Amino acid sequence: MLSENAGIQLSIGCAVVALLFAIGLIRSIASASAGNERMREIAGAIEEGARAYLSRQIFSISKIAVVLFIVLGFAKDWVTAGGFVLGAVCSMAAGFIGMRIAVMANVRTAQGATVGRQQAMRAAFNGGAVTGLLVVGLALLAIALFYLGVGRWFADRQISSLVGVALGASLISVFARLGGGIYTKAADVGADLVGKIESNLDEDDPRNPATIADNVGDNVGDCAGMAADVFETYAVSLIGAVLVGSLLLKGQASAVTYPFMLGAVSVLTSIVGVLYVNFSKAKPGTALMAGVGVSSALSAVGFYFVTQMLFPQSIAVDGREITPSGLYISALIGLVMTAVVVLITNYYTSTAYSPVRKIAKASETGHATNIIAGLAIGQHATALPVLFICAAIWGSFHFAGLYGVAVAVMSMLSMAGIIVSLDAFGPITDNAGGIAVMSGLPKEVRAITDDLDAVGNTMKAVTKGYAVASAGLAAIVLFGSYSTELRDHLLNVRKLEESSVPNFSLNDPHVLIGLFIGGLLPFLFAAFSMDAVGKAAGAVVNEVRRQLKLKPGILSGQEKPDYGVCVDIVTQAALREMILPALLPILVVIGVAALPGLGKVVLGGVLVGTIVTGLFVAISMTSSGGAWDNAKKYIEEGNHGGKGSPSHQAAVTGDTVGDPYKDTSGPAINPMIKVVNIVAILVIPLFF
Amino acid sequence: MLSENAGIQLSIGCAVVALLFAIGLIRSIASASAGNERMREIAGAIEEGARAYLSRQIFSISKIAVVLFIVLGFAKDWVTAGGFVLGAVCSMAAGFIGMRIAVMANVRTAQGATVGRQQAMRAAFNGGAVTGLLVVGLALLAIALFYLGVGRWFADRQISSLVGVALGASLISVFARLGGGIYTKAADVGADLVGKIESNLDEDDPRNPATIADNVGDNVGDCAGMAADVFETYAVSLIGAVLVGSLLLKGQASAVTYPFMLGAVSVLTSIVGVLYVNFSKAKPGTALMAGVGVSSALSAVGFYFVTQMLFPQSIAVDGREITPSGLYISALIGLVMTAVVVLITNYYTSTAYSPVRKIAKASETGHATNIIAGLAIGQHATALPVLFICAAIWGSFHFAGLYGVAVAVMSMLSMAGIIVSLDAFGPITDNAGGIAVMSGLPKEVRAITDDLDAVGNTMKAVTKGYAVASAGLAAIVLFGSYSTELRDHLLNVRKLEESSVPNFSLNDPHVLIGLFIGGLLPFLFAAFSMDAVGKAAGAVVNEVRRQLKLKPGILSGQEKPDYGVCVDIVTQAALREMILPALLPILVVIGVAALPGLGKVVLGGVLVGTIVTGLFVAISMTSSGGAWDNAKKYIEEGNHGGKGSPSHQAAVTGDTVGDPYKDTSGPAINPMIKVVNIVAILVIPLFF
Repeated sequence: MLSENAGIQLSIGCAVVALLFAIGLIRSIASASAGNERMREIAGAIEEGARAYLSRQIFSISKIAVVLFIVLGFAKDWVTAGGFVLGAVCSMAAGFIGMRIAVMANVRTAQGATVGRQQAMRAAFNGGAVTGLLVVGLALLAIALFYLGVGRWFADRQISSLVGVALGASLISVFARLGGGIYTKAADVGADLVGKIESNLDEDDPRNPATIADNVGDNVGDCAGMAADVFETYAVSLIGAVLVGSLLLKGQASAVTYPFMLGAVSVLTSIVGVLYVNFSKAKPGTALMAGVGVSSALSAVGFYFVTQMLFPQSIAVDGREITPSGLYISALIGLVMTAVVVLITNYYTSTAYSPVRKIAKASETGHATNIIAGLAIGQHATALPVLFICAAIWGSFHFAGLYGVAVAVMSMLSMAGIIVSLDAFGPITDNAGGIAVMSGLPKEVRAITDDLDAVGNTMKAVTKGYAVASAGLAAIVLFGSYSTELRDHLLNVRKLEESSVPNFSLNDPHVLIGLFIGGLLPFLFAAFSMDAVGKAAGAVVNEVRRQLKLKPGILSGQEKPDYGVCVDIVTQAALREMILPALLPILVVIGVAALPGLGKVVLGGVLVGTIVTGLFVAISMTSSGGAWDNAKKYIEEGNHGGKGSPSHQAAVTGDTVGDPYKDTSGPAINPMIKVVNIVAILVIPLFF
Repeated sequence: MLSENAGIQLSIGCAVVALLFAIGLIRSIASASAGNERMREIAGAIEEGARAYLSRQIFSISKIAVVLFIVLGFAKDWVTAGGFVLGAVCSMAAGFIGMRIAVMANVRTAQGATVGRQQAMRAAFNGGAVTGLLVVGLALLAIALFYLGVGRWFADRQISSLVGVALGASLISVFARLGGGIYTKAADVGADLVGKIESNLDEDDPRNPATIADNVGDNVGDCAGMAADVFETYAVSLIGAVLVGSLLLKGQASAVTYPFMLGAVSVLTSIVGVLYVNFSKAKPGTALMAGVGVSSALSAVGFYFVTQMLFPQSIAVDGREITPSGLYISALIGLVMTAVVVLITNYYTSTAYSPVRKIAKASETGHATNIIAGLAIGQHATALPVLFICAAIWGSFHFAGLYGVAVAVMSMLSMAGIIVSLDAFGPITDNAGGIAVMSGLPKEVRAITDDLDAVGNTMKAVTKGYAVASAGLAAIVLFGSYSTELRDHLLNVRKLEESSVPNFSLNDPHVLIGLFIGGLLPFLFAAFSMDAVGKAAGAVVNEVRRQLKLKPGILSGQEKPDYGVCVDIVTQAALREMILPALLPILVVIGVAALPGLGKVVLGGVLVGTIVTGLFVAISMTSSGGAWDNAKKYIEEGNHGGKGSPSHQAAVTGDTVGDPYKDTSGPAINPMIKVVNIVAILVIPLFF
């Protein structure tokens, strides 16, 4: 049996290997050709806009983070506050890395597409792989170092301060997802509304003044926002498992080491998966799926040995026995969940299956039927993931209690390295297509990037499904932490009787009130963020109209549009509009905790209510959005009348509705759920 | 103090007064002119189609009802099974009455509009009032008689058999809402898609082969379906209050009499409200709202005396004191909730306020922004009703425990008589407009009916909000019944220990699994019913295209379209497509109860999960739909470019998407929630 620290040190080693491998990949990407001067110029403009936005976003969020740091330091302790800073900084760094790599990879993907599909695919995938491995490596490394460091100098805070790290990661992630999501979709919708519909310009036409902003958006939303989101999901899952392990399996050092080791195994197998995709000669979609399959299979083997090593025999927890095989089965459940979510989302959003084709067919009878079909598909798409989540909870709890659920979550998230590689693929090829059109590369180049982009759309939906499904499981672990922490606090700090500890029974109307208030949060959050996109997009529309009117030469190609103004407008709008929805979950939790007549029992209901409706809202929004996007792509391939037909116009409407659905509101619900749960844990000593 | 039976007999008396008043109103409506021969011919065709559909619907449902009657008789007892038949028959009768009155009133409203706005308004409103009073009177009468009758002959089943009545009412209501909803929206969407969009025909153009089917739909969906739904909501609220009263306030006869008396008071004050509207000279919207105000104020006074009479002093329940003023406050909370829901829904769906105008404005930038705005408004619209529901639960529970919540629900529903008068107003004026166009009445007539129709749209949304909000409260009462029944069953029948009684703690993952499965139901149900509308509408589109191709003379007015075939097609499609979604909640409850590893605890979670997501899904769908419809109306009044402008086309898209939202999926969720809860109560002795 491994000592606790040795296991965590081993994880640090694996994380470093992943980071080194990622740096190697970066050098190999950087060495590829960045195309001709025009391409580099455009890529430079995109990079400049993205960098400017992210810097300002970091500046905006930092002000809020400093306030929270101080509040946390005084209200809790400075170690937790320090953890908060670590989580926040790493989450920001993850976003920044995601963006930097993407802008490096997209121009090389465009250049690769001038040579062949294989080259383009490899450049895009490796760009994604760098982000995936860096994000996961960074999360594993930072949390392990923090845990060991705090353990050495502030041993009594070793576990509790991890909640600070989780809050930092989640909060920044909500801002990044929201700010980036509002940016990318406001620019996209704004550019489409005036460009495609009013002026009949193609996607990414350089005459459209909003086109650079649109491409910047892919990088700050789909790359930076996603990277921060996955960092958060990974960090919270790992921390949740450590918390539950230390709370429920008191005195069992292995319970803390185990989640780290699961992460360590999978970060290595993810590298193997990345290599596999690089050497595969299969079609893009197939190769990517096979990469996930290889990583999962290897992880399943690795988990077996890790489990044997850390848990050589059964342990007793609260009078029940937890066996090594029970733990191993829980870990396998996490891997199976990954595969299941990937397959289900792929089914609902790929052009190859009936849901997307149904939407495409419904476009023949107009805009309204396209929308109805897409909304219905989104609702349908909730069923299988939710039933599998239920099965996963049931199974992992049956075999290893609440700790088993935590192990399943961590095992699921351990695959994030390879999953993010797939996700980042989408925005990179999307941008590559933009660069190809703007720099006047031949049509065949765009055909290749478009083709890869359809695969990318599905992969993007897959990652969101993955993040949300894991949030469903993680939130249960976090609710368990809230409930256990509250109990400890009431019994040990407040010295109350056992009978005063709430048991959150559905028979108590306060729990129901909590469920309703919590259930409201995702709906309100989605509504606010959709509004935000609408407002910001309106500002873009007005600016584009103004430029086209002022300089009639833009449309004839004789004058150059002023891209910078659009970039500025979206930047300001996104930063302004993200604040209210991002603060909503924090304010609601504090309000419920503080208001007389509400309090701890209602708050427990709020946590669960948020996850119950949040799961459905997020899955249905991201699935509808992905399906609408690919229904448009499917029609553009020449089906149901092809490009320019009435069906295509209807499909463009669906795609535009889907934009804020799948890229702003839907995915931001995942970190929002976590913020609610983590803030609740933190307010326990303050209010109860 | 009144004896128990005397109080209930008094309610029977009030119900009979309401029925007599309604019959008087019918005679006054019937005596008005039904217009010229062409109008009577069209009205006759609509009536024939509606009657044919409802008869076939009743036949279809009866087969399922007979099976359930037999199952219920053998599995439970024949008194409960008899109650089931009573509930089912009354629910069907309510639907049939709603339809009959509507087809009588609509042609007279059209005729009234040739004289003036006041006449049209009065004919439409009185038609609605008849339905409202008949439905409420019937519910009060049937349940009171059943209760007294069973009490005389099978005293030991007096309470338990009421669950059978509730099931009968709810189940039929789900079928009626779904079947009618699919019918009306398939015909509407189908007629619009080919008529308005492909052939440029106006709404209700007699050359459109689907136009009669469209008008039939208003009657079988918005009138018959709505009437069955309100009957169900009223019956279940009354029965729920009686159940909770008898379970929690054992030995207190007043606890059972009180809900009956609340109903008795309000059915009388509703009559006063109806008279008030008839004699009011204010604008339609204002007059209708004032009518509700008058009824509520009088009920508030009446409730005071009833409370004083039945509860002259405080009573002790489980060690806590329930005061007369506590009960009275709970009853007032129900009245306030009615007013609150009416005002909030009015705000979100009336053309006079910013939400509808925002959608209209967003239509300027196209179909997609119209849809995004409408979806966001629907999500926003959930916030206030849900927060007020929470406040109502908190307040009524605080003042009088779970029985207080039940009293609040019953008090809220006691206003159904006047509320339905408002609701039925909408489809009657809609149909009157159709008859006016088809029979070639002058344009001014249509202007009057259109104007009233916009008021009607808001009123329709108001009733749906009212039904769903009450479902939110009622479901809590029903969950309380499930939990209490289960406890009694486990302790007394199974002779288990107190510690084996589940307490449905959120700490138990089985409860969470239940919440997820329950939460899934409204999404899946909505998805299935939206699909059903899509499929049925597709069949209509094909038929209309076929007729227009086969007989080119239809469009030039030289040949008559064959309306009957369209009516037949929609009838068959609606009856076929309603089965699966209607049976879904029953099958899920039985499945969860029966499957090993799931069972009673998971089922408790399912009940609450269904209400948590159901509330949000239903409110957001009905609000979005109402707002889209009125945004179109607002543009047609000449704003944002007016009729025929690109804004108007975008608004038509929103309206079409809103059709299945607000008239099929959204409103059917209300009875669906109840079916889940009632079936769960019934399966307790079978599986646990």
